[in-house]
Amino acid sequence: MSAPPVRIRRALAADLPAIVRMLADDPLGARRERLEDPLPDSYRQAFAAIEQDPNNELVVAEGADGVAVAVLQLSFTPGLSHQGGWRATIEGVRVDSRLRGGGVGHELLRWAIERARQRGCRQVQLTTDKTRTAARRFYESLGFVASHEGMKLALAPPPAGAA
Amino acid sequence: MSAPPVRIRRALAADLPAIVRMLADDPLGARRERLEDPLPDSYRQAFAAIEQDPNNELVVAEGADGVAVAVLQLSFTPGLSHQGGWRATIEGVRVDSRLRGGGVGHELLRWAIERARQRGCRQVQLTTDKTRTAARRFYESLGFVASHEGMKLALAPPPAGAA
Repeated sequence: MSAPPVRIRRALAADLPAIVRMLADDPLGARRERLEDPLPDSYRQAFAAIEQDPNNELVVAEGADGVAVAVLQLSFTPGLSHQGGWRATIEGVRVDSRLRGGGVGHELLRWAIERARQRGCRQVQLTTDKTRTAARRFYESLGFVASHEGMKLALAPPPAGAA
Repeated sequence: MSAPPVRIRRALAADLPAIVRMLADDPLGARRERLEDPLPDSYRQAFAAIEQDPNNELVVAEGADGVAVAVLQLSFTPGLSHQGGWRATIEGVRVDSRLRGGGVGHELLRWAIERARQRGCRQVQLTTDKTRTAARRFYESLGFVASHEGMKLALAPPPAGAA
């Protein structure tokens, strides 16, 4: 299937509702996001923190009407290993459920990999929940290798009234 | 076994040779690091980039003589998912091979998890090579869950002479 015409660009604050809708429209995301109007302030604060950080980029693919139909976040991290090579980490990849399988995700990921190369990264990494078996195959088709365990530790929010 | 007395602190430039020695003293690290005197400049450049970034912290445990005997890097990343929660990512965990199994690693990791909590993170994450089976058990003993595939894509260095 050929990819529909999309334009890839940095996300704007006006994209937030469409982005949160995509984050929530997912078996895992539905349990942890809050798609409300207006959006909870925590999303706007996180968007501002991403925008202000030169090592973080929130990227969307927009359809013909300008609405975001896919999103991911790219983080660039300096590190000592690999002789001091920078790493790019991709998080929060989502494609509008009406467009899945149509090539938009591939196009966005290829853009992100090229962006990591431009930034001088020696490696691109991501983790994907083991229950998302189609996602693993998708990333393998882009050249990613599932060589690592992705380990997570949830931290409880601080108790109400804590400093 | 009780942990030996170590002090945990931010890494200094003077720790770099001890840190790179630990990165290289490892079946995987031996193939990709360059432990030379003086160290390749790329390590010093990476160290400077980490130091200048308020969202990156290079942390060591030092023994009684002040020499670094364990190291890890903590990166704090704002993100939209999980209602705009910050994530902490741990990378480049190494313990001096003479001290492995003595509790230093646990102490350093517990410190890092507490630091992530202080920074308001909702999640701590790391990836570990699937060939490191002891490492997976080590992280599980700290509460990490191997719920994700850790996927990596190596990027070739730019050709010599490229802009």
